[in-house]
Order: sequence, then structure tokens, then C-alpha cells
Amino acid sequence: MAFDPASSDFLRTSELGRKPAPAPSGGPTLADSGEFTAIEHLTKGLAKTEAVVIGIGDDAAAVSINGPTLVSTDILVEGIHFRRDWSSAHQIGRKAAAQNLADIEAMGGVPTALVVAFAAPKQLPLGWAQGLMAGICAEASLVGAAVVGGDLASADQVVIGITALGESEQAPVQRSGAAPGQVVAFAGSLGLAAGGLVVLSRGFGSPRDLVAAHQVPSPPYGQGAAAAASGAAAMIDISDGLLADLGHLASASGVRIELDSSKLPVGPDLQRLAAATGIDPLRLVLTGGEDHALAACFEPDRVPGGWRVIGEVVGGAPEVVVDGEPWEASQGFDHFA
Amino acid sequence: MAFDPASSDFLRTSELGRKPAPAPSGGPTLADSGEFTAIEHLTKGLAKTEAVVIGIGDDAAAVSINGPTLVSTDILVEGIHFRRDWSSAHQIGRKAAAQNLADIEAMGGVPTALVVAFAAPKQLPLGWAQGLMAGICAEASLVGAAVVGGDLASADQVVIGITALGESEQAPVQRSGAAPGQVVAFAGSLGLAAGGLVVLSRGFGSPRDLVAAHQVPSPPYGQGAAAAASGAAAMIDISDGLLADLGHLASASGVRIELDSSKLPVGPDLQRLAAATGIDPLRLVLTGGEDHALAACFEPDRVPGGWRVIGEVVGGAPEVVVDGEPWEASQGFDHFA
Repeated sequence: MAFDPASSDFLRTSELGRKPAPAPSGGPTLADSGEFTAIEHLTKGLAKTEAVVIGIGDDAAAVSINGPTLVSTDILVEGIHFRRDWSSAHQIGRKAAAQNLADIEAMGGVPTALVVAFAAPKQLPLGWAQGLMAGICAEASLVGAAVVGGDLASADQVVIGITALGESEQAPVQRSGAAPGQVVAFAGSLGLAAGGLVVLSRGFGSPRDLVAAHQVPSPPYGQGAAAAASGAAAMIDISDGLLADLGHLASASGVRIELDSSKLPVGPDLQRLAAATGIDPLRLVLTGGEDHALAACFEPDRVPGGWRVIGEVVGGAPEVVVDGEPWEASQGFDHFA
Repeated sequence: MAFDPASSDFLRTSELGRKPAPAPSGGPTLADSGEFTAIEHLTKGLAKTEAVVIGIGDDAAAVSINGPTLVSTDILVEGIHFRRDWSSAHQIGRKAAAQNLADIEAMGGVPTALVVAFAAPKQLPLGWAQGLMAGICAEASLVGAAVVGGDLASADQVVIGITALGESEQAPVQRSGAAPGQVVAFAGSLGLAAGGLVVLSRGFGSPRDLVAAHQVPSPPYGQGAAAAASGAAAMIDISDGLLADLGHLASASGVRIELDSSKLPVGPDLQRLAAATGIDPLRLVLTGGEDHALAACFEPDRVPGGWRVIGEVVGGAPEVVVDGEPWEASQGFDHFA
């Protein structure tokens, strides 16, 4: 979700480029199969969980959810969010699912179910679509969620719309609860996916861990609910970049956030990339999206395990500063700029 | 929704054609506004209902839903499902919402909330996108549902993915409960949207009621829940055409359905169209999708008001026959044929 800034990402169209997708790799296409057979192939053997009251195959699915239903939707477009020559179908499916599951996590929730709206050229190999679905299901299974429905249509580009449902034991953690005196912490990784994009954009294949982080993010599943249980006052999914997303949180809460750059993680892979390219690795950590880390504000003595403190919440006009100064670089990605 | 045949529709690509969309009609484009301003414009003043615990602007929305959460998703693609020169943005929004709301109705449910995933060319006028959202909200308000979230991205074509959530007082009515001895009935209209498509495809503007039915369907809101309350044994949304969708119901239930053509409605507009074009109006009634009528099976003495009996459920191999014979014409639309 949302009609909100966390829905966009770091990938610029110009960086991803518009290289045409590779030619079909053999096997039947969607057109060869026909819609109904394709749907059969794509939904055969999908795992059901206990929460699934009615699964795929009716006008709607029914899912058992405790408390308010959390819902989040994202749309991924070929050439903007992914390239079929840079990532496998399975990887794209995992990434598409991960970014929705992370939104549910960022409310302190536990994902329950996904529905998948999929549009693609008729000549797309059926095997590619099957790989995509397998990737979506594989990622969902990491958190015990099930794919319960979808839709299939033809289009000029591959477009993947995923909606995630979830539940929360505590009241959902919004962006608006941060207050002076709290600390800012994150769980997950920062800048790795953006580093991987730099690697791929330059035609390289390593550091491989960065490429892998771009292809399939690793949201810190379970840490959203853990943060809620620790009384997190505000939380957000990092999809546009740490600065941009904390900026949204600061605005929603009416607070100033002061980050300490010495506490930000710049691992050996980002250092290698920096040495090879001259790119400031801190820029990737601060502005790179798509890792789907979580950032949250806690009382100082209630930061849960797996979270790392990187700054403080103070009073003042809503703003995020690094070592006391505004950060000058790009603060995120605008889909229509 | 679903990975199911009810997700496709009567519109053939070849009929809709691929005429380029009209030039921007002045005013700022999405690119002029930028993503975040566009989102602000698109979400400003959206109505909240009592069920909305957390609305637009966070990582996920939270919606209060009684019992299992019903969920259905559909994806609409420009040139396949709609043309911007045949329908206004508001009309397309209403239609996109209606087709999802009808899926919730077809489970016997009451729609509660929608999320909207929207991808569009950067040069799309912002006003068009605002009209689309206004149409979605207008249709949702007919059933008391709220738009609670969405996503915005750039793409070559306009693509609209809508996911509807709903609740049901009774157990959801599936497709699989029909049994011999029951009657088949429908609520809503049949063949009018398909008639409107024929009118538009030939460059005409009337009968205007048919064109209007193509532009904005009128699902029989409330009749899904009424059917469930009357003990409907099986129900389906008519989106592919009566024969095709009853075929899905017959298969799911393992029954034969016998329709009586004398009981099918062929109104004066369809008769006028038939006179002008030579098209068998019964073909439109039997195979036209997109009116989003509901069809359901009831015990003979329990058909609720607003429903019209058109046939019977009998034993035998799953099949739908008209006046005792299989219907030879096309039974629906395959997106990848």
C-alpha cells in the first residue's frame, strides 16, 4: 500500500532502463495455454493455511483474521521495478511479495493472505508466470501467509499487483506516534539492494550479496510484531530510503529526528563497492530503498533484540538530520519526476 | 477476483481495438505534479466509514470486519477492459469498482473497503486520475464501502488493480452448493453491457441505455446478502456471460443446469439493436459479460424478491443447456486466446 510515499522506491526508470525482455525461453506461452489453463497451472497445489476459510476458485476468498484486517497493496511494473533479464521470475515473485509483507510488518502485524493481480503480454512463457507465482508463494510461506486469489489479464508490459492482508495482536503501530525522548532504531538491512542495483547497472555481477539483496530483499520478518509488543510508538517500512521514510514518519508525528552516522551500518560489501565506484556508501545506506528494513521509535529502555539504535527523536519542526545537518542528496524516488 | 474464470470478461481485444488514447485535455499531468503531489490530490477528502480503523497514509490500512474477511482482486488494462475515448475517467472508475464489489456480493457479502493500485503513463492528466478516483469512490459509496489505500506507479498503459474487502453475516455462498431440485435465478441485468459494446464498436451512440450499461454497470447491490439470507445454495457473479459463469457453477457443484429461454429478459433496447444489426439478442443475454448480474440457486419456494427464475438444477454431467440443447455460440472470453 498506500497512496503514500512508502509505496515508491529507489529505482529510477533511467537506471533500470527499458531493455526489451529476453525472447521467450521455450515452452508454452500464455497464449498457447489460454487463460483458463494458465490459471489452472498457476494455482495448482497452492498451499492453504489454517486461516484460509475459502481459497482460490470462487468470486472472493474468505480469510479468518483476528481483530481489524490490515490491508496493503503495491503495484510493480516491468522496466520500472524489475527487469526480466536481471532477475528470475522466482526472484521477482519473492520481491513483489516481500514488499507487501513488509508493509504489514510495519504496522506491527502478521501477514495472513495475499491476492495477486497479474497482467502480461500474451507471448510471455507460461513457465515464467509459474516461476513468479512460485516465488510469491515461497516468500509468503516464510511468514505463514497463503495466496488466496488473483486475476489474470493481458497487457503490453508485465504488471504485478499484490494485496496483502494481515492481523495484529496489539493496536496497529502507525507513523504518527513518535515523541521527543524516544530513540530511532531499525531492523533489517540498509543500502544493500541499492548497492546491488549499482552493480547490475554497471554490468557487473559482484559483490554477489549486493546483487542478491537487489533481486530478493530480506525484510526482518517477525520484527514488526516484536516491535509492537515492545511498545513501538511509530514504525515504517523503508522502501524509499531511510531518510525519505523517516521524513514521512517525522511529518506524521510532528517531530525532528537526529541520526548519528557513526551508528549506521556500512558493511564490507558496500565498502568494496565504494572503493570500486567512488560512490559514498553512506548515500546508499541513507537513500537506498527496497531492502524493506523497518524503522521504529521506542522508549530508550525498550528497544527489542534485533534492532539497532541509530538516532533520537527530538522536538522541533519535522525534519531528519544526519550528524546535525540536513542531508543534501536525493531523498528518494518520485515515480513521475 | 480470482484465479478463476469470473475474472475475465466479454470484451475482446479485437473489438476494443488499440486506438491511442486522446491527447491530454490540458491541466497538469502526473509528471507535472510529481508522485507525492499527485497522491495528495488523489486522496484528499476521501470519505471514511465507521469500519475504517486506519485509513490512507500509513504502510497499511486497518479495517474492522466481522467474521471472515472476504477478499477479491481484479486488474483492468487500457485497451483490453476500457478505452479512454469511449468512457470518462469517472465511468471507468465506477466500472472498476463495481466489478470488485460484485464479487463480494456474489459471496453473499457486504463490501467494506477497497484498495486501488494504479499505474499510468507519466503524461496522463492528473485530472483524469482524479476523475478515476472519484468514480471509484462514488461507486463504493453506493454500498457504504471506503477506499482505504492504494499505490501509484508509472507504466506504458493505464492499469487499474482493485482489491475489495467485505464481510458476511451468513457463511459465504460458494459456487459449489447447487443441488438437483433447486431453481436458478438471477438479479440485475443481462446482455446490456455487451449490447453497448456492439453499439460503440460500430461507431454509434444509441440506444443510449446500452452504451451507459457498458460504461457503468449496475450490479444489483444488496441482492447478494439477500440471497444468502434466503438460503442461496450457490451463487456467482456474471462477468464472463451467463452461460460461461453458470458453467463454472455447474462444474463446481457437479450439476446440470437447464435454462428456459422464454424466461430470459430481452428488453426493447436489445430488440432495437437486434433489428439494426441482425445480432441475436439472446446471444447477448447468454454470453455477454460485464453487467455483473448475480446468478444463484435456491429452493423453489425461497427465491427472494428482485430475483427472476430462469431455469432448474438437475442431476447429470455438469453442463448448461438452453431449452434442452447445448448453446453453440462462444461461451465467454479468453484473455490469451
